Parts: sequence; structure tokens; C-alpha cells
Amino acid sequence: MMIIMQTDAKTEQIEAVVLRVEYFGMKAHLSKGAERTVIGAIGDGRAVKQEQFLRLPGVDRVVSISRPYKLASREFRPQDTLVPLDGVTFGGEEVVIIAGPCAVENRSQFLEAAHAVREAGAQALRGGVFKPRTSPYSFQGLGEEGLELLSEARELTGLPVVSEVMSPSQVPLIVQYADMLQIGARNMQNYPLLQAVGQSQHPVLLKRGMSANIGELLMAAEYILSQGNRRVVLCERGIRSFETTTRNTTDINAIPVLKSLTHLPVILDPSHSTGHWEYVAPVALAGIAAGADGLIIEVHPNPSEALSDGGQSLKPARFAEMLTQMRAVAEAVGRYLPPAAEELPLKV
Amino acid sequence: MMIIMQTDAKTEQIEAVVLRVEYFGMKAHLSKGAERTVIGAIGDGRAVKQEQFLRLPGVDRVVSISRPYKLASREFRPQDTLVPLDGVTFGGEEVVIIAGPCAVENRSQFLEAAHAVREAGAQALRGGVFKPRTSPYSFQGLGEEGLELLSEARELTGLPVVSEVMSPSQVPLIVQYADMLQIGARNMQNYPLLQAVGQSQHPVLLKRGMSANIGELLMAAEYILSQGNRRVVLCERGIRSFETTTRNTTDINAIPVLKSLTHLPVILDPSHSTGHWEYVAPVALAGIAAGADGLIIEVHPNPSEALSDGGQSLKPARFAEMLTQMRAVAEAVGRYLPPAAEELPLKV
Amino acid sequence: MMIIMQTDAKTEQIEAVVLRVEYFGMKAHLSKGAERTVIGAIGDGRAVKQEQFLRLPGVDRVVSISRPYKLASREFRPQDTLVPLDGVTFGGEEVVIIAGPCAVENRSQFLEAAHAVREAGAQALRGGVFKPRTSPYSFQGLGEEGLELLSEARELTGLPVVSEVMSPSQVPLIVQYADMLQIGARNMQNYPLLQAVGQSQHPVLLKRGMSANIGELLMAAEYILSQGNRRVVLCERGIRSFETTTRNTTDINAIPVLKSLTHLPVILDPSHSTGHWEYVAPVALAGIAAGADGLIIEVHPNPSEALSDGGQSLKPARFAEMLTQMRAVAEAVGRYLPPAAEELPLKV
Amino acid sequence: MMIIMQTDAKTEQIEAVVLRVEYFGMKAHLSKGAERTVIGAIGDGRAVKQEQFLRLPGVDRVVSISRPYKLASREFRPQDTLVPLDGVTFGGEEVVIIAGPCAVENRSQFLEAAHAVREAGAQALRGGVFKPRTSPYSFQGLGEEGLELLSEARELTGLPVVSEVMSPSQVPLIVQYADMLQIGARNMQNYPLLQAVGQSQHPVLLKRGMSANIGELLMAAEYILSQGNRRVVLCERGIRSFETTTRNTTDINAIPVLKSLTHLPVILDPSHSTGHWEYVAPVALAGIAAGADGLIIEVHPNPSEALSDGGQSLKPARFAEMLTQMRAVAEAVGRYLPPAAEELPLKV
Repeated sequence: MMIIMQTDAKTEQIEAVVLRVEYFGMKAHLSKGAERTVIGAIGDGRAVKQEQFLRLPGVDRVVSISRPYKLASREFRPQDTLVPLDGVTFGGEEVVIIAGPCAVENRSQFLEAAHAVREAGAQALRGGVFKPRTSPYSFQGLGEEGLELLSEARELTGLPVVSEVMSPSQVPLIVQYADMLQIGARNMQNYPLLQAVGQSQHPVLLKRGMSANIGELLMAAEYILSQGNRRVVLCERGIRSFETTTRNTTDINAIPVLKSLTHLPVILDPSHSTGHWEYVAPVALAGIAAGADGLIIEVHPNPSEALSDGGQSLKPARFAEMLTQMRAVAEAVGRYLPPAAEELPLKV
Repeated sequence: MMIIMQTDAKTEQIEAVVLRVEYFGMKAHLSKGAERTVIGAIGDGRAVKQEQFLRLPGVDRVVSISRPYKLASREFRPQDTLVPLDGVTFGGEEVVIIAGPCAVENRSQFLEAAHAVREAGAQALRGGVFKPRTSPYSFQGLGEEGLELLSEARELTGLPVVSEVMSPSQVPLIVQYADMLQIGARNMQNYPLLQAVGQSQHPVLLKRGMSANIGELLMAAEYILSQGNRRVVLCERGIRSFETTTRNTTDINAIPVLKSLTHLPVILDPSHSTGHWEYVAPVALAGIAAGADGLIIEVHPNPSEALSDGGQSLKPARFAEMLTQMRAVAEAVGRYLPPAAEELPLKV
Repeated sequence: MMIIMQTDAKTEQIEAVVLRVEYFGMKAHLSKGAERTVIGAIGDGRAVKQEQFLRLPGVDRVVSISRPYKLASREFRPQDTLVPLDGVTFGGEEVVIIAGPCAVENRSQFLEAAHAVREAGAQALRGGVFKPRTSPYSFQGLGEEGLELLSEARELTGLPVVSEVMSPSQVPLIVQYADMLQIGARNMQNYPLLQAVGQSQHPVLLKRGMSANIGELLMAAEYILSQGNRRVVLCERGIRSFETTTRNTTDINAIPVLKSLTHLPVILDPSHSTGHWEYVAPVALAGIAAGADGLIIEVHPNPSEALSDGGQSLKPARFAEMLTQMRAVAEAVGRYLPPAAEELPLKV
Repeated sequence: MMIIMQTDAKTEQIEAVVLRVEYFGMKAHLSKGAERTVIGAIGDGRAVKQEQFLRLPGVDRVVSISRPYKLASREFRPQDTLVPLDGVTFGGEEVVIIAGPCAVENRSQFLEAAHAVREAGAQALRGGVFKPRTSPYSFQGLGEEGLELLSEARELTGLPVVSEVMSPSQVPLIVQYADMLQIGARNMQNYPLLQAVGQSQHPVLLKRGMSANIGELLMAAEYILSQGNRRVVLCERGIRSFETTTRNTTDINAIPVLKSLTHLPVILDPSHSTGHWEYVAPVALAGIAAGADGLIIEVHPNPSEALSDGGQSLKPARFAEMLTQMRAVAEAVGRYLPPAAEELPLKV
């Protein structure tokens, strides 16, 4: 921690800061500059807060030297973390595609979607049964009765299933049906929920909050990691900016930035980050080119009948076509995607 | 709902839109303009989604005519809603000041703060026992053991107590100790939590999320109102913008905008919306001048020792001085604040 | 400047940084912390750029200790700067109200507006003849032929006139007609223009850019001050955020923040910062309560016929009523506004 | 234009709106919905402003049906516009790379950079001689004496030269030395400047303002196009958001959105949109994958000695390596980049 004094700070004010540094068990290190004095607090100051210096007379600013997250940082763990999910692995050379409808609406819709994404070549299946909706009057998901459909789709396709969890009390139930728990953007700072999924030891897909900066996303990951659960995959899903032409602003910078700051895998959700099906393919390709370890994409057999997010969902044929382009871009940057699956007989 | 066609939309595309409008039980109303045709969908379309038209060929945009919130709107209820809280009322001519420390840290800190804010003239007391903290390594609140201190402070001062609730499972417990439940900014879209406080029928202080727009804040209120709980007070607490000199950007516009769109009371939190104690007083005065029904302010007996938010907490003496200015501004805009209390013997 | 090394920086990397600090004529000051080494560069480093250290191996971050603006800072000049404008003064106890139409449209519109705002009690008159418009097809202002109307209105009402300048070549002309030059938000970083108004030595009203942070506003002021022109008044006019209910987001925090960082007067433009006439009065009152030295407000005799910004312009009667409220709030915070003028015979 | 009435609008208020629509020479078209009446104004309303209805009693909102830009829209011109620049063409299958230093600093720096980028395979050269700098104390560019160096570099390398223009009075001079005029982000709404470059008929590289939305960027292009100059290339260069880890937020969505809304070529500036050299390559690749028609990239022979933007400049070797990756990604999306040039003897 560096305490930067005001230009007109008095000697006794500087001395008071030094005393307080020492009071906290740290050593004070003075640098008298041309304009200002800066006092470095040397030692373990993780428990000391900036405010405890900010309020002292003569102090201008306090600058933190350490990063606030530890377990999530690449300085703590330089090598990439690999997060396995039932046969496929996030964080290696393979680019992992999770696809499926926003919400599980009914048996035939979900199984049809599951079959289509598997056939196109996706490695995992998404489908929400608990849905966070802006309006209390919108479809809120099938709830518990939708969970059995997750199992059925997994059995049918062999794909692992990702599903969102919205409150700590849902965790014990969902872990029985889903292979990976998704924390949605609105819940990125729902700390009781982060602790609950941390304790579950289940793989977690942690979506960035719509106005969370990169440090806050890593602090949210730290909540999960600090419970001993290392199977965390981060997801950029667009941030809120002044631009309203698209639903969100894809922060493509976040992909290389996160890959440099943390060892955790990073994927992109181009469906939410654009909000319009026409823009999903170019932004998905951009994500792979920028170094994303995977994508999560909304696919619906009949988007204009979807109960949620129809505007940003792809039809299966377009999704399949997009996967072909994605394979080419992945190869161009030294990654790979598996080939499209042989047609599977659909056992509905 | 108005469906705006592309400039080159074909007759059969327009007819397909009309058919779909009628399929949903609404009447279609065509306006052929100089450049484009616009199709109005007349009838109850609340259950119909824009996407169900957006994906049809030839459609350019869909514009919603109705507002998405209903119970929260002033069109639904033109007169101001009054929310009583143990003798004081939000939404009338009185400006209600809630004050106290960010977190309940220990008995002497909390009781000293409670006494000081009561003496200065605050009408309610704040104090968090469950704290949402960005870092898992920060003080997380006293938890259940802090609840008794809320009761003790209420008894000592006679002030009603406001305290934050972070998950649905905490609600049954907290309602026994706190007079008003606070939903923090990070939980504004935690829907299971909104439903739980809605069902509790307890007064609720709903803080705006840091990147929630005004419509989303009103939709969050709608979640609570739709459970039959009308005792909702809205709170502007600063939004996230590109400006980093202050912790947040006080959206002062939101106060008159909300007063015009909704019948619910609206208060301001100048402590969080600025993040620096020096700016709390001018922004608090601005809030009253702009028409806020109250303020919630962080006061700590010893800010530089605070375990949370010390940088933005006021010392009791400064808070008392600020109340004097607030009384003058309230009067200037036709409102009032009660006078400072007589000194009470502190029964600690 | 403090150079913060990576946690695994090697001794020779630290030495290379020290050598470079010394190469620039500064002294290096090492603090070896628990995790990282921090190197302070002591001496005059204003000409040295952060990048010159950022690219060295082992460097994590560079933190600037000095503020980038100098002449604009309160550290350079602790006492408030007073900017006189033809009998009225910005920065003292008087709150200065500049009012008038967005654009000078024709003789009768402008003289009627001028008379009305003078009668209500405004101390200065605004009126644009060169208008920056988003669309090339919108009214662009009367241009040079509007300048004579500025003089006529000034003579008629006795009020000093504020008018916008859009390019350096307009400066010599406008200074002959206007008493104060306005730099609009879109031109806050138009550096040739800032230099030109700086050289003019005319009073300048510098509006904050819609996405300029406070430091950048002060740097823009520095451009003018560095030409020897100290008559600069800063204007908060709303910033761009994600909120679209209002045209801009009034950054009310900016008022006390600027008053603390700079000695220059600070005013608020509630017409642009809200964009809706209904919200102008509450936000104007908020501005005075927060410590603004003045306001600039759009008033039009017939807003629904205005060629520009009609939606946010006040009718004269409402403006007069608002001034009454503003007087009360100004008094509540220890400032004052002059009383309404006696009715003047209108010599149109 | 659709005028949406309040839910409680009276018949005479609706009639007043209809009268006004007709007064402006348009036809009124009423749709009486379940909750509200909507009045369509049919006819050429380009000159009519929303405010002229917004202020009428009983009106809730006014929705524009037409887009405000015309010449820039794909509806006006469905086929892609090709902008030729001295042998290379923006908007076709070739991806055009403009590279070079932020600022022309001196002869050897600029010629060395020019040679390096040509050798690596760039098709055009950038170099600023008039520099918009946040601080008046920073290097402001060589000014007129730098112009000759542009010509010399062009002759040496055969590459066309792009250089920034900051005020209308500079245009006649710069067009003699530069092949393409750059309008910087800070000047995107400097309308006299847009008009001047429009009149010049020179190719223009128009950078998006840091808080300009996509509609405003297209309106800025409209200013140039409306002067009869069709040679406009748009450039996404990052927008300002709350995220501060990177200098700006690359709005990668803007690339496919612009390609869909306008016929003009669109390029990306990953140097400014990230602000850090480490992130330039992944974001550049993302731009090509998303469909950009080109890139503009800062390359400096010795970034840590650069007088401007050293932190985001690439060294020539890294730039050359990046071009190899860019060629592979371009091919993966059906575009191409020319191969690296044969080594040219440097005639310095």
C-alpha cells in the first residue's frame, strides 16, 4: 500500500501516517518527491483497509500494490487450469461449444434442440429450468419438473448439461441433474450463492455481471475458489454501455485480458453479448480469434415461438453452418473443434 | 405493439404479419407511410413477445406501446403511496432520514452510532448484519449474532431499524428483528429474494442496481408488489459510469423521473452514490432539493476504524451539522425535517 | 511516478528500471515489499511518460503521483477564482443564472426571450448563432447574420450575452458581439479551438464533454489557462451513461468534486443534463443545493415551435416561477440570487 | 412518426394532435388500442421535430419511424461502397492494413517505421503530424514541418499515407501531402471540420467518437457524404465504458452492425481500442473474424522511446508475426491479405 500525501502535508501529518503503518505491524518507507511525500507500507497489509489511512489529515490518495484476488490470479498459478466436463476439457487446445435453448420449455422442444446441437458438433448442452426474468409476468422456467428433461437429454445425446442455479437452496437438487452449474450475470455478486456452488465442488460456469469490471469478476471467482472448488470457467457475456443498438456490448478485450490475469478458462456468450441472431456468428468467430476457450450459444428449433430470448437464438441449420466457419477460424489460431457428429437416431 | 416494416417489405410479408397479429387474438391496424408500413397490434398483447414478430421476414423493428410494469406505475395509481415505518411515513411532506453505520461491528460501536444519529434528528436507524462484500476475505457481517443488537438499539433509541437481507432463507429470521428489509444494489435482480420479501409483507427498501436503468428498477419493484406487498420504498444509490473520481455517479435525474413514473416513495443514498465523506453533504442537500422523500446516510463514531465503508461515513458531529442544513433546504422546497432530539441519557 | 514490479521480477530487471529512472535525471527510491518491489522516481518527471517504464521487462504497473493539470488545480491556487462578466461575477456568493433560447431563430423570438429572462431575474443571456447539430439536415443557426441580434438584445436588456463558438476562425468575429464564448460539449477536446479562445482573453464557458471525466475537463481548462486566459467557467451538462430515460445523466457529484479540485467557478446546465422540461426545475434546485456557482437554462417563448431543443426549453412563466424557488434554495445554503427585475418596457 | 398518447388522454387532446399533424401537411392515422391511442403521421416529416408534438397535452411519447441518416444507409444504397486508395481498395475481399507510428517524430523514426510496415505487408502508412493531446504540455506533433516527411515516406515505400486533420484551416495543406484524411475520435462531431473534409473530395477515415453511438457515427458520415464526398471509411476505435483495465472497450459488435446498416467500409483500430500492445494481436484477429474491411495499427521502431502512445505500439517484428496470423484468419473467413513484401533497400 502506498500512501500519497497532499502537496502541503505537514511533517507531523507524515509522522502520524508512519505511526499508523507501524501500528498495523508494517514497516513505513518514505519517499520525499519534488512535490509530495509517498509512504510505502511494507508487510502483510491484506487485512488493512485503505480507508484507515484515507481519513488521516494530509493524505491525498492511497494506492493498492497487491491485487485483491489471489487464488484466481496467474501470479498464484502460472499454468492454465483445465476444467474437465464429462469427457471434454475447458482450457486446452480444444474450443468447447455449449449450445441449446435459453429455457427448457417442454419435452419435444428440448430434445429436438439437444439432438440438433449434438449433430452439428456441440460438445455440451445448455437449458435453463430456473429462469431469472426481468418481468414477474414472463415465463419463469419449468422449475423442478424440468430437471428430469435435463437427464433425459443427456442420456439421449451423451452431452453434458449446463443449467442455471438462482438460489443456494436449489444447489443440492440441481447438482443431481446438471453437470455444470451456471451463475447468471445478475447473480455474479450473489455471495451466498457463490459460496453454495463453491461448496458443491461441481463445475461452475460464472458469467460476468453486466456492469462488473474484470477485477470484480475475478473476485467473484475467488469466492468459489476459496471454498476449495477449482472447477470454474469464466464467461464474458457482454457489458452494459451507452450503445443501445445491440442488447449488450461484447467486451472482446476481456478475453485476452482475462487469459493474461488468470489461469481459469474463459468462454464467450455471443448470443447475450449481441442480443440479435444476425450478429451471433461474426462475434462468435471473433471470440475464437481472440483466444476464447469456448462459446455458449442459444439454439432453438423455432426461435419465433421461443418463450425466452427468441430474438437472439439461432435455428439449428444456421448453427451447423456457423460451426463450419468456427472450425476454420479455430485452426487459423492453432486451436481445434471436433467434426460434426454422425447423425444419431433421435430416440424421442 | 407497433410492427415497423422494412422500406422494401413486400405485400405478402405485410400480410403474414397481419395474420400473426390476428392469430394472437389482436386486431391489426395498417398505416402505410411514405417510406414504410407500420402495423399496429390492437388488443391485450402483454403475453405476446416482440421476438414473435421480429423474426418474420420484412420486419425492421417492433416498438412496445405499453409500459412493462403495471402495479408500480403512476398510471395504475395516480396518488402518492405512503409507506409508514413505525411512526414515521415515507412519501408525505416529511423528509425521512435513515442513518447509522454500514455494518454492525460490535455492541458499543452500534449503540454509540444509534444514539448519535437519534440525537442529531434521524428518524430511522440503519445497520447491516449480513454484508455483501466484493472480497471473500473482507468482514462479512456479524450474521445472526448481530440481530439482537438491532433490537437493543431500537429499544434504546425508539428508532425503527433497517437491515439488509441477502438470501430468501434469511427473511423469516430478519423480519423478527428489523422493521424494514433492505435489498442491496447487487441483489436488485435476485428474483427469489424479491419474491421472498414480497411475501413477507414487511416494508422494503429497494436499492437500484448499479447498472439498472429506471425501467428495470420499477420491474424489480413490480416483483415485490405482485406478491401483494405495497410497502416499497425505492432508493437511488448511484450508478456505474465511466467517471471514476467518485465511487458511483449520483443519478440525480432519477429522483424527479421516478416521482413522475411511479407512486412509490423515492429516497437517495448519498454515501454510496459519492463514496467520499466530503461529498455526502452537498449531494444530500441536492437530493432534498430535487424532491427526494428521504435519505439514507452512513454515520460511524470512528470512520477510520470502520470495518466497512469508512471512507464514505460521516462522523456524528458532521452529520448533526448537515441535518441543520438539510432542514433549511427542505423548508425551501416546501418539505420539513423534525428538529434535533433532546439529549437522551445513553443506557449502554 | 511509482513503478510497481511484478511479483517475480528479477534483480537485474529492477536494476534496469533504476538505471532508466536515473537516465531521466531523477532519483530512484526502492521499497521492497512482501510481494513486490516498488521503485519511486523522485524529481521532475512531468516530461517523462509512463510508457517509457511500462515496456521494461518485469514492470507490472506505473502509478502517477502528480496530477496532470497544474494551473487549473486548487493546489496551485487555493483561493476561488472570480470571473467577472459585465457587472455580475461567477464564483462568489451570488448564484448567476444564464438563460435564453438554445438558438437565435429570428428577431422577435430572441428579443422576446431576452426580455422575459431579464424580467424574471436572470443575470445573463444565452443564444446560439452557430449550432452544432447531429444532423446535417437540421437548422444550423443563423450564422453571422444572427450576431447583430446578440448586440441588439444586449442593448435592450442590459444583460451580457453568451454564445457558442465552433471553430478557431469564428473567434475574432464572435468576440465583437458576445461577452462570453461558449465551448460546447462536442468541442471540449477541440484543441485548436481551446487555444484560440485562450488567446482571445475573452471569458469562456467551457462545457464538459459528454464522456469526459473530471480530469479531462480540467485538462481542457488547462489548455485555455496555459494561453494566459484565466477567465474560465466550467459547466457540468450531463454525461452519457447507460440510462436512456433522460437525455443525459446529470453528474451532480461533479459539482462538489470540481469545487474541491479546482479554483475555477462551476455551473450546471440542467436543460441539457436532463433533456426534458419537466425535470429542469428539480435538477436546477439540486445544482444550487450542491454548491453550483450558477446555472445555464434554456428558455423559449414558444417551445413547441423551437427550431432546436424544444423538448427541454422552459416557457417564460415557468422559468420565472422556478427562479422564486431557486432564491429560496440559494438562501438555504448561504448564497443569493438577485430579485426579479422591475418590468422593463420592451423596445421591440 | 408515431405519436403515442397517455392512457388517460382526452378526445380533444387527440384531436389537437391530429390537427397539428395535418397542419404540417401530413395525414393522421389513428389506432385506438386497449390502453392507448397511437396517431401515425403519414407523409414527409423529415423537417418536423418530435418536440413539436411532445409538448402537446396528453402526449406520452413520440417514436420516429424513419432513420435520421439517409445517404449513409444501406436502404439508400444496398451494394457495398468501394473506397479506392492509391491501388488498394477498402470494402472488397482484400483486408487493408494501415500501419505506422502514432506521431511522426523525426525523419529516421518515421522512415524506419514506414519501411518496416511495408516490408511486413501493410498496404498503407499512418503518421500524425497534428496531434490532439489531452495535455497542453505533451508533444503536439511536428506540424507543417512534418508534412514533407509524409511525402518522402510515400515515395520511399510506395504506400499511400493517412494523416489526421484537426481543423478546417489545415485541410487545404494536408490534402497536398496525405492520401487519406483521418478525423480523430475527439473530432467526430466537429461539424465545420466534417464539412471541410467533405468538400475536399479526398478519401476520409472517420473514427467513431469515444462515446458516440452507432447512429451518431452514421450521422457524422452523413455530414461528409452530404457534401458529395463518398469516399468515407468508418473506423471503430473503442468506446468508453466503466471498464478501466483497458484504455477503451472494443465494441466488436459494431463491425457486423455497421456492415448491416451502411454500405460504407468499416475498419478496426485495435491499438486504441485496447491501449496495450499485448492485446493488439488477439483483438486485431477478432476484428478480421468479425468482418472488418481493414485494420489500423500503431507500429513504432522503439515503442519505449515513443513521444505518444508508446504503450500500445507494436515493435516491427511482432507486427510482422501478427500479419502472418491475420492472413490465416482472413482466409478462414473468405477474405485475403497480400503476402509480405520482398525486402526493399531502404534509401534513407
